[in-house]
Amino acid sequence: MTSLDRDVADRLKRDLDGLVAAVVQRHGTGEVLMVGWMDDEALHQTLTSGRTTFWSRSRQEHWRKGDTSGNVQHVREVRLDCDGDAVLVVVDQVGAACHTGAATCFDDGLLAIRPAAEQGTTP
Amino acid sequence: MTSLDRDVADRLKRDLDGLVAAVVQRHGTGEVLMVGWMDDEALHQTLTSGRTTFWSRSRQEHWRKGDTSGNVQHVREVRLDCDGDAVLVVVDQVGAACHTGAATCFDDGLLAIRPAAEQGTTP
Repeated sequence: MTSLDRDVADRLKRDLDGLVAAVVQRHGTGEVLMVGWMDDEALHQTLTSGRTTFWSRSRQEHWRKGDTSGNVQHVREVRLDCDGDAVLVVVDQVGAACHTGAATCFDDGLLAIRPAAEQGTTP
Repeated sequence: MTSLDRDVADRLKRDLDGLVAAVVQRHGTGEVLMVGWMDDEALHQTLTSGRTTFWSRSRQEHWRKGDTSGNVQHVREVRLDCDGDAVLVVVDQVGAACHTGAATCFDDGLLAIRPAAEQGTTP
């Protein structure tokens, strides 16, 4: 049982785990800081507590960003997308967003882009 | 069987449907345009074709953004996040990103933020 507003809950299109994707974006710069997962209760907490709360798929528990690290996310805006399977959460981020200490969870993940014709030309 | 680079494939943490979340961001402005889903083949196509390709969870098929609408996304950069369950795709967007005609899929989805103490004070 969750306390999430019924109107919002009715608009969600959850995955097989009952989750929607939560994209966290820094207010002002527009940087995408991280992607987490929210069940109804995590979204409810995020909408009512002023802090981002997620569902950990690996630990199977709720976690509130910053409770351990101090790197709190203060919620400024939450938007649901057109088909209800993702939310965009605009925040003021304290400290690093990534548990590695990087500013964002995408900083170290640049993938190579190359035409299919070039595939296999490198080891 | 997919042609996705083995090193990349080994870093993915897929959900129960074999998918990762794909956050599409506009180059320059940083706007988050949409969230789609990618299996290994969709990510491979996105990395090698210059265009975003997704897996449709509702239709259970691949789709390349813009093939129907003309609103193509030209891929500039793809980043994998720290735990491998999301990619950030930076694009040059042609036309509207949302199938509704809105610039982004989040334009019309602003949710109310309010302290828990205020719950129930409106119908």
